[in-house]
Amino acid sequence: MIIVMKAPTDEQVDLVVRKIKEFGLDANISRGTERTVIGAIGDERKLDQELFESLPGVEQALHIVKPYKIVAREWHKEDTVIDIKGIPLGGKEIQIISGPCSVETQAQMDLSAQGVKAAGSRLMRGGAFKPRTSPYSFQGTGVEGLDIFRKAADKQGLPIVTELMDVRQLDAFLEYGVDVIQIGTRNMQNFDLLKEVGKVNVPIILKRGMSATISEWLMAAEYIAAGGNHNIIFCERGIRTFETYYRNVLDVTAIAVLKKETHLPVIVDPSHAGGKAWMVPALSRAAIAAGADGLLVEMHPNPCEAWCDADQALNPQELINLMAELRGIAHVIGREIL
Amino acid sequence: MIIVMKAPTDEQVDLVVRKIKEFGLDANISRGTERTVIGAIGDERKLDQELFESLPGVEQALHIVKPYKIVAREWHKEDTVIDIKGIPLGGKEIQIISGPCSVETQAQMDLSAQGVKAAGSRLMRGGAFKPRTSPYSFQGTGVEGLDIFRKAADKQGLPIVTELMDVRQLDAFLEYGVDVIQIGTRNMQNFDLLKEVGKVNVPIILKRGMSATISEWLMAAEYIAAGGNHNIIFCERGIRTFETYYRNVLDVTAIAVLKKETHLPVIVDPSHAGGKAWMVPALSRAAIAAGADGLLVEMHPNPCEAWCDADQALNPQELINLMAELRGIAHVIGREIL
Amino acid sequence: MIIVMKAPTDEQVDLVVRKIKEFGLDANISRGTERTVIGAIGDERKLDQELFESLPGVEQALHIVKPYKIVAREWHKEDTVIDIKGIPLGGKEIQIISGPCSVETQAQMDLSAQGVKAAGSRLMRGGAFKPRTSPYSFQGTGVEGLDIFRKAADKQGLPIVTELMDVRQLDAFLEYGVDVIQIGTRNMQNFDLLKEVGKVNVPIILKRGMSATISEWLMAAEYIAAGGNHNIIFCERGIRTFETYYRNVLDVTAIAVLKKETHLPVIVDPSHAGGKAWMVPALSRAAIAAGADGLLVEMHPNPCEAWCDADQALNPQELINLMAELRGIAHVIGREIL
Amino acid sequence: MIIVMKAPTDEQVDLVVRKIKEFGLDANISRGTERTVIGAIGDERKLDQELFESLPGVEQALHIVKPYKIVAREWHKEDTVIDIKGIPLGGKEIQIISGPCSVETQAQMDLSAQGVKAAGSRLMRGGAFKPRTSPYSFQGTGVEGLDIFRKAADKQGLPIVTELMDVRQLDAFLEYGVDVIQIGTRNMQNFDLLKEVGKVNVPIILKRGMSATISEWLMAAEYIAAGGNHNIIFCERGIRTFETYYRNVLDVTAIAVLKKETHLPVIVDPSHAGGKAWMVPALSRAAIAAGADGLLVEMHPNPCEAWCDADQALNPQELINLMAELRGIAHVIGREIL
Repeated sequence: MIIVMKAPTDEQVDLVVRKIKEFGLDANISRGTERTVIGAIGDERKLDQELFESLPGVEQALHIVKPYKIVAREWHKEDTVIDIKGIPLGGKEIQIISGPCSVETQAQMDLSAQGVKAAGSRLMRGGAFKPRTSPYSFQGTGVEGLDIFRKAADKQGLPIVTELMDVRQLDAFLEYGVDVIQIGTRNMQNFDLLKEVGKVNVPIILKRGMSATISEWLMAAEYIAAGGNHNIIFCERGIRTFETYYRNVLDVTAIAVLKKETHLPVIVDPSHAGGKAWMVPALSRAAIAAGADGLLVEMHPNPCEAWCDADQALNPQELINLMAELRGIAHVIGREIL
Repeated sequence: MIIVMKAPTDEQVDLVVRKIKEFGLDANISRGTERTVIGAIGDERKLDQELFESLPGVEQALHIVKPYKIVAREWHKEDTVIDIKGIPLGGKEIQIISGPCSVETQAQMDLSAQGVKAAGSRLMRGGAFKPRTSPYSFQGTGVEGLDIFRKAADKQGLPIVTELMDVRQLDAFLEYGVDVIQIGTRNMQNFDLLKEVGKVNVPIILKRGMSATISEWLMAAEYIAAGGNHNIIFCERGIRTFETYYRNVLDVTAIAVLKKETHLPVIVDPSHAGGKAWMVPALSRAAIAAGADGLLVEMHPNPCEAWCDADQALNPQELINLMAELRGIAHVIGREIL
Repeated sequence: MIIVMKAPTDEQVDLVVRKIKEFGLDANISRGTERTVIGAIGDERKLDQELFESLPGVEQALHIVKPYKIVAREWHKEDTVIDIKGIPLGGKEIQIISGPCSVETQAQMDLSAQGVKAAGSRLMRGGAFKPRTSPYSFQGTGVEGLDIFRKAADKQGLPIVTELMDVRQLDAFLEYGVDVIQIGTRNMQNFDLLKEVGKVNVPIILKRGMSATISEWLMAAEYIAAGGNHNIIFCERGIRTFETYYRNVLDVTAIAVLKKETHLPVIVDPSHAGGKAWMVPALSRAAIAAGADGLLVEMHPNPCEAWCDADQALNPQELINLMAELRGIAHVIGREIL
Repeated sequence: MIIVMKAPTDEQVDLVVRKIKEFGLDANISRGTERTVIGAIGDERKLDQELFESLPGVEQALHIVKPYKIVAREWHKEDTVIDIKGIPLGGKEIQIISGPCSVETQAQMDLSAQGVKAAGSRLMRGGAFKPRTSPYSFQGTGVEGLDIFRKAADKQGLPIVTELMDVRQLDAFLEYGVDVIQIGTRNMQNFDLLKEVGKVNVPIILKRGMSATISEWLMAAEYIAAGGNHNIIFCERGIRTFETYYRNVLDVTAIAVLKKETHLPVIVDPSHAGGKAWMVPALSRAAIAAGADGLLVEMHPNPCEAWCDADQALNPQELINLMAELRGIAHVIGREIL
């Protein structure tokens, strides 16, 4: 940590140095013309920025080491490949996870699973518990939906990905053998939920909070990892900005940055980012070209009849067409989609 | 709801009209030179915008009625005054709720409660469960902290305000008689938590999500209200923007807008908004001048020793000075601070 | 335009209708349960939203037709291909425009032009006039720089792209035969500058303002087009958000949206978006995959010695490598890079 | 400047030190466990952050001294009071500058000036040149408008404030004796315009760019100051965020921060910030309570007939009422409004 002081007295400098030593670190003092800079030498994660900024004479305190550890590539150079019932995520092979926004009926899920399979997707998504802005909107089919989803996916041999919103539902998720648990954008900093999924042995997709910084996102993953579960998949799903034409802005730069900062896989949800089906192909191609390890794409057997987000799902044929383009791009950058 | 269609065929118009009627509403068709506009007449809350936007020929669907009901001033004209152990919030009297960021020790809380009382605050705040960006930071003193807080506040006869992060802690909150439950910014759209506090008979402070729109915030309150608990207090605590000089931007416009849209009280947290103690007086004055019904101010008996957010708490004397200024401003706008 | 009224009196409705008719349009009145909606039928561009919102009883006024005309695809279905000294921009062929951030010396520009040519770029960029945040930073080599640039590019037969900041420099730009005039992000709404370049017969690259909406950007282009110059190229260069890890967020969704809304070409500047050379390949691939018609890439013969933005330029070999990847992606989506 | 290096070799450290010395500064090297930190001692404004970040082994380079000088309070402790034809701005007395959005006719401006005078405003605002999003909107009455404005204001003895958009109009502004020149939000980084108004001897109101950081804003003022004109008034007018209920978010924190960072006056435009007349009183009170030195308020003799921004102007009586409240708040904080 670096502590910048503005024309400090000797007593003020001494107090800062004493505080640094209290935490077991050493101090290096550099007196400049306009500022005095004190460097804390040792494990700076022990030092609290706010504490130092509250001391007299201190203008600012700056961490120079990243606060994340387990998820950081700095300490784990090779890419982590997560095994989902034999399907690898995070290596050379790119995974396109597809399926409807929400579980509606057995027939709809059976059809959806067929569409997923037909397009060549190896994993299936679908929501049984739905976070909705309004308490008066459809809230999901709940545990019954998990049952429907499990049955439909099993017929096609597809592992399932679904969202967990409440710690009290975790047991049901384990009972139905959910293969990948998704933590949604609104829960990225629901720390108690993160701690709980940190204790289970199921891969976790951690969606980025709507206005979460890269650093906050990595720290949210660190919450899960600190509990023992290192099978974490980051999912960029668009960030909130001033633009009103589309729901969110897909942040492709985040893909490149995460691949540099963490060894864990990074996927993208192009459907929620743009919010419109017609934007999905362009956003999907961009995500794969930028280096994403996978996608989470909404596909519905009959989009106009969907109970939720009707205008953002592809139909089965559109998914098939998209997969063909994505295979081409994957090949250009030395990767593959089966 | 208004549905805008671009050069639609008669079949496309018919399909939209049929869908509107399926939900029990009527349709008014207006054919213009460049667009055809269909108005849905009846309770438009039954209609799903995405569903209509997925129909062929539809360019956009727009709600024209606000989606919130119980919390809306449109249906409840007079200001709601919430009674907190005999202390009114939301009427002519403005309440300054103060206390430390987190519960540390009995001695620290006893001193804090004395400071709160000495400054003339009638309610006390303090955190036992702390949402922290890093899993390696101090996470709060937990249930033991509730006990410490309760004892310290009781000695001064102060009702207590503290944050609930996890549905599983709600029983402990009721057991210790927490007088006002705070839902933090990261949980504004933790819908399961909102549903639970909607079932209890304790006033709720609902902080605005860091990047929540006014509409989303009102809908989050509607989740609580829909459960039966109408004692909801909105708390503006700064929003996330591009600016990096300060932690968040205190949105004073939100105060005026909420007072127009809802009958419920609106308070402001100037401490978390700016993130620095020296900004608190200016932000507090602005909030009261803009029409806030109260404040949530951090005060610590010894800020430099605080375990959390050390540089944003006022000391007891600073709080006393601030209260004097705020009384003057309250008087100018026809209100009062006791 | 749609005017939404809340429980209006007959007089209030009459006033709105009268105003609509004053501007030569007709009115359609639809009385609903909670709101009355008045549709204005005719050329709604004549109506001012603010004017109607100031009338008694009006809750909101909404335009339903897009305010842009000449640049809109609605009235001009086919893609516009701009001819830059025989090089097409906006058709099947994608153009990678490269070169240094700023013109420094004749030797540096000669080397740069060789690098541009060697990589297969068909157009060259370089700044003679530089918009800098600080008045104490290097402000560009000015008119002398134009001369240097022209000479260096002519040796390689490359058309040149350079930024115009001040109406008073336009004559110099014409004198040196600048082939494409760039309007920078800070000048996107410098309306007097837009009007001036609307009068010349030179293609214009219009960069998006740092926080400009798609609609504002299209309207800025409409300013140029309204003057008679329809050779406009949109350039997405990253938008300002809350994220601090990278300079700006490259908005790939904007590419797909612009291709839908306008017939004009859309290019991307991956160098300024991320602000770091190591991000440029991923962002470039994403942009081309999303459908961009070209790129504006910084390349410097010796990045560490650049006078400006030293850490965001590729070196000549990196540009060559990037071009190879981009050719592959272009091919997958049915386009080409020569 | 501080340069942070990650596991650097001795050669890499030597290169950084050599670069620092090339610019005439000294270096202090501090080797820590995970990072090596090099402090540059001397006038760090000479060092370019990007240059150092492009050197091998460097993770980041950080300025620790603020880049602004003439406008900084660090070098000029006392508040600057600007004299506008005998009316002080920036001292104990707060100035409410009012008038219509745009100059329409002589009659409208005469009535406006009477209203300004009647409310006790000592300065008058009005726009002759209007920056409009659409080229098809009313663009202002231009030089003729300056003439109308001058005549109307002179009858009431009011100094005038009006916006300059184009360097080529500066002579007309001087000819008509404009008393305060306003630089609008879209031109905050129109550096050539800033340089020109830096050469004249007229006070300048510099509005904040819609998404300008505090630091960029101070640097824009530094452009003016560097030319010799130190009579600069900052005007906060709302920033662009994700919120769509109101046009912009008035950033009251910026007031407190600017008063700390600069000795120059800070005023607020509550009318453009919110965009609706009904929000103006609350925002005005908040601004004065937060410490603003003045306001720029839109008032129109007949808002519903205004040619521009009809729904954001107060009528004359509303301005009178607002002034009374503001006088009360000014008094509470030890200031005054005549």
